[in-house]
Amino acid sequence: MTTTADDAFAALGTLLGERLNRSQSDRDLHGRSESHFNDMPPDAVVYPETTDEVAAIVRICAAAGLPLIGWGAGTSLEGHALAPRGGVTVDFNRMNRVLDIAPEDMVVTVQPGVTREQLNTELRSTGLFFPIDPGANASLGGMTSTRASGTTAVRYGTMRANVLALEVVLADGRVIRTGTRAPKSSTGYDLTALFVGAEGTLGLITEVTLKLHGQPEAVRAAVCAFDSMAGAVDAVIATIQSGIPMARIEFVDAAAAAAFNRAASTGWPNAPHLMVEFHGSTQGVEEQVRRFAEIASEFGAQDFRWAAKAEERTALWAMRHNAYRFTLQAFPGSDPVTTDICVPISRLAEAVEETAAEIAASGIPGPIVGHVGDGNFHALLLPRAGDAAEWATAQRLAGNMAERALRLGGTVSGEHGIGLGKTKYMRKEHGDGWDVMGAIKAALDPDGLMNPGKLLPGN
Amino acid sequence: MTTTADDAFAALGTLLGERLNRSQSDRDLHGRSESHFNDMPPDAVVYPETTDEVAAIVRICAAAGLPLIGWGAGTSLEGHALAPRGGVTVDFNRMNRVLDIAPEDMVVTVQPGVTREQLNTELRSTGLFFPIDPGANASLGGMTSTRASGTTAVRYGTMRANVLALEVVLADGRVIRTGTRAPKSSTGYDLTALFVGAEGTLGLITEVTLKLHGQPEAVRAAVCAFDSMAGAVDAVIATIQSGIPMARIEFVDAAAAAAFNRAASTGWPNAPHLMVEFHGSTQGVEEQVRRFAEIASEFGAQDFRWAAKAEERTALWAMRHNAYRFTLQAFPGSDPVTTDICVPISRLAEAVEETAAEIAASGIPGPIVGHVGDGNFHALLLPRAGDAAEWATAQRLAGNMAERALRLGGTVSGEHGIGLGKTKYMRKEHGDGWDVMGAIKAALDPDGLMNPGKLLPGN
Repeated sequence: MTTTADDAFAALGTLLGERLNRSQSDRDLHGRSESHFNDMPPDAVVYPETTDEVAAIVRICAAAGLPLIGWGAGTSLEGHALAPRGGVTVDFNRMNRVLDIAPEDMVVTVQPGVTREQLNTELRSTGLFFPIDPGANASLGGMTSTRASGTTAVRYGTMRANVLALEVVLADGRVIRTGTRAPKSSTGYDLTALFVGAEGTLGLITEVTLKLHGQPEAVRAAVCAFDSMAGAVDAVIATIQSGIPMARIEFVDAAAAAAFNRAASTGWPNAPHLMVEFHGSTQGVEEQVRRFAEIASEFGAQDFRWAAKAEERTALWAMRHNAYRFTLQAFPGSDPVTTDICVPISRLAEAVEETAAEIAASGIPGPIVGHVGDGNFHALLLPRAGDAAEWATAQRLAGNMAERALRLGGTVSGEHGIGLGKTKYMRKEHGDGWDVMGAIKAALDPDGLMNPGKLLPGN
Repeated sequence: MTTTADDAFAALGTLLGERLNRSQSDRDLHGRSESHFNDMPPDAVVYPETTDEVAAIVRICAAAGLPLIGWGAGTSLEGHALAPRGGVTVDFNRMNRVLDIAPEDMVVTVQPGVTREQLNTELRSTGLFFPIDPGANASLGGMTSTRASGTTAVRYGTMRANVLALEVVLADGRVIRTGTRAPKSSTGYDLTALFVGAEGTLGLITEVTLKLHGQPEAVRAAVCAFDSMAGAVDAVIATIQSGIPMARIEFVDAAAAAAFNRAASTGWPNAPHLMVEFHGSTQGVEEQVRRFAEIASEFGAQDFRWAAKAEERTALWAMRHNAYRFTLQAFPGSDPVTTDICVPISRLAEAVEETAAEIAASGIPGPIVGHVGDGNFHALLLPRAGDAAEWATAQRLAGNMAERALRLGGTVSGEHGIGLGKTKYMRKEHGDGWDVMGAIKAALDPDGLMNPGKLLPGN
């Protein structure tokens, strides 16, 4: 460190004027997350407008040894954007421009503060769309940094497959560009893939170039109830194995369906459901629908309800996106613990059924929903607030889910990431690979200032 | 270094017996490549059979400061497997087992010496296949290490998209596993993506888990001639932009078509051609064929020849795969220089036409073929052997192609990689990003023993 924190705040003030905010209220706002973590506010919040400003901020903070934490929409679930060691939160909400839409290459370049809904609004007239949909209206910088996915990843892939190029400010203030607009490259280490999912621990992303997809000619969506959880899950496995190019295939258990009914007057049967969507040509979608309906019926599906109109589909997926909120409303006074495991599709039935049985036996509520076409699902565990025994039970259930995922050949996070919450599982999942991540971190951020406390060993 | 090279060879002999080979003939065999590089033989060749043996080899060589170079099928084109600083070449041809086929998860785990043709033969009865097809019957370890792609990447992606997990022996002999069989994960840095395309400079890959794809219900392939190069290229651009899910779409210029005619008695017109293939349901393929034919006709396609039968298709693609050999036969006595640039699809016409015009003006032959659906193409430049002026011209043309790719927003290698041959373009493509690669290399291989001289700065 060559300067003091006070020097750094003075320099940031000179650089940014009122776009440096050290008020208690703004620090508190950036010290909270959407899940169960304690508040951990930064010492200051900055609102850059350009890459050059981000680079200057990084150099100023690095000289004073101040941690730097990126902030998009604040929707992450593992405490990624909290400031356990204080420092400066870099809020990207003023870097929210769509910089360049290139329809002929089906790519777009955005600043990191652009949200996915904003992007799709701006794309509407082009015939293209950006499909990745984690539910929350997250920022694209945040989605890149957590390697987000969501309901449509089964068809379009995750952020890993859809980020083509990045601009990144490194820990020493250098600015690099990774990748190009060409569809592929074999020129050295895949730095784009390295920064996707690095959770801001290697640098701050200042531009994202994304692949776009053609708006499908035809879209149909449906929801159907099943006799049993096993029937619904087995129908998913058979559907995926049959090669039907599902655009979405979501599982909702009976408890989650009941929460939907209560919050949104859905009128669904109190039973496990699948929510599905098909994209393609008119003819292609018809064929997909027919094949899916055959498979689902074999596994006990009934009560198909089709949402053909765009508004009906929007309402259907809005409900899925509100699953977290609706479930909390159904169980007021609880202290939610989110989970997020992902297994090979062949092990999905075991994973879901063991999890459901263990939750049922535990005595605390834990509705299950999931992007099951990817083998990914979530139980929302709901211990009563302030009940230490129930909290411990929820932690045990979450830990057992992670262990189960690993035992079945899967991963402890399909899409939420590691942040503060899941470092405890990293050694078991990655072995010495976790130390390889640590070595890369030490090489690119030797002072450990980029989002400290997250993802890595020894934090 | 704690031991001498002689100590290391003695230890390798004890470990491997006759699977350590120091004969001049075997060293020479592993000191040659398929392209224009001078011979650079290693000091010894080893033939491990297990991961444990690879780890032991790495520890022995590391203690003596001996370089380690991985060797698959020897088909790389940028000198990746040559030994410019001597050392030990690790030939994986005895690690050639398909370890586990999991049809229900559509994945397979192989040892690195398995070739793509061998894999597809072993998969035949499963209804699944591994689509990546670089032409040569490369090893899957080598294809992973060079981030290979080829004719089918336009539909199925490159090795980046199709490698799900790896086992890697690091420079210090530790063995790590990256990734799982789950379709996605958000647990930390994407080490799988880091080792894919690292050209053996960060470790030796000892197992590869690959995604498989369902054998399509229907396949059709065709070749058609065009009035002009511009027509053929513009037809590709329009086809890709229309969203037709082409399985292959290959450009062959008039000079390459003439070479095919001479070598394989093809009887094609002396004109630019597209070679295409469609995969899907019977109905889906018909729709694709109809839409492609419409677009192609608009741009002057004529003389469609369909290869509906499997044997006809095999013959068609064998010819494409032999383009390199056939072209050399057509121009005996030349010293070939391969090229490999990739641009955004919107700039493909400029890239191909400028390249063709410059080659035509240069006076040396340079047929062009390419995986143009990805924006990727190759000119095979053919200066006369021993003619220094023609050699210099070929080098100038190759350099101008690389510069052109960068100017048009593309990359200096779509699929061949960097190796020894293309480090000269890395600074211009990656700027400080190349130093980031160097920092990662230094962190994971501080003594610089893993495939030295390739890919990285300061080599």
